[in-house]
Amino acid sequence: MELLERRIRQDGTVLPGNILKVDSFLNHQLDTALLDALGAELARRYAGAGVTKVLTVEASGIAVACFAARHLGVPALFAKKAKSHNLNGAVLVARVHSYTYGRDYEITVAARFLGPDDRVLIVDDFLANGQAAQGLLAICRQAGAAVAGFGICIEKGFQPGGGALRAAGVRVESLAIIDRMDENGIVFRKA
Amino acid sequence: MELLERRIRQDGTVLPGNILKVDSFLNHQLDTALLDALGAELARRYAGAGVTKVLTVEASGIAVACFAARHLGVPALFAKKAKSHNLNGAVLVARVHSYTYGRDYEITVAARFLGPDDRVLIVDDFLANGQAAQGLLAICRQAGAAVAGFGICIEKGFQPGGGALRAAGVRVESLAIIDRMDENGIVFRKA
Repeated sequence: MELLERRIRQDGTVLPGNILKVDSFLNHQLDTALLDALGAELARRYAGAGVTKVLTVEASGIAVACFAARHLGVPALFAKKAKSHNLNGAVLVARVHSYTYGRDYEITVAARFLGPDDRVLIVDDFLANGQAAQGLLAICRQAGAAVAGFGICIEKGFQPGGGALRAAGVRVESLAIIDRMDENGIVFRKA
Repeated sequence: MELLERRIRQDGTVLPGNILKVDSFLNHQLDTALLDALGAELARRYAGAGVTKVLTVEASGIAVACFAARHLGVPALFAKKAKSHNLNGAVLVARVHSYTYGRDYEITVAARFLGPDDRVLIVDDFLANGQAAQGLLAICRQAGAAVAGFGICIEKGFQPGGGALRAAGVRVESLAIIDRMDENGIVFRKA
């Protein structure tokens, strides 16, 4: 998606350790006009796919998930990382390793919000090693819900997450796929 | 706001310990059409107030903050609860006590996203004891930013957070204020 690639080139910063900082517009400060456009594009790609719910994980996936869900006319649902005292009742849980935070954590969804009648679009800001993606897939599997596919803002194409999902037959729509990045620049995969 | 009060009566559940569960539409599963309407109403109330940025704290404030910011045509910014490896550079930090999670935590914002030229609308899903609200105010103060006021979905009017802010001269717009609640029902404050 040209709009997103241009913004990444303009405002993204590549740091050592394969880190792409986009916190001025995507996952700390949020350019809500851009995020609305990204959500609209994900909704366009999944129009007619029978999506009943958009699933993401807190915190940085929530913004794009909300706009995508709004355009699809369905609810969004975000998995929680900390166990809230208020999240009583049956829960769906998966274990996820975070490379960003350097630790494992559990993601949790209240079981009553996801079931066999659902067809889920899983949305996130980044797809890299695919740890969070696999956790969200596991939660859908536990719920007996079908997965329409993934809707990702930025996929790091040089890391294995997206390839593994596609190899397993899962639909992955990434609005920008980075094949290489270093201090000299960013190379996007051609559409 | 009639739309929100009706929805709270219909789908909210009052639990012991002054807990109001609204996780089927406001802070776990998200009714994005409702949240868009709440964001539009906050934007309407703060139209002409010169807001340059909407500030919230992860995770449950992000949805309404995004929709409010989209309607105001400004960026949203969410304070982080965990210290990310990616959040380098100067940061603004405040300490907050969570009654929900039963512990203290720090909230952090990258300093370059908030400054003396900003006029901030602080948005959250709930206002009860006001701990998160005071933390977000402290962050604005550290940044030298002006605070236009607060935009809250549900204020627990029987807890001291909202009253303390108003007594200090801060503008607080709450879309629903609950004066009493128990197993027999919920009493909203008249507008």
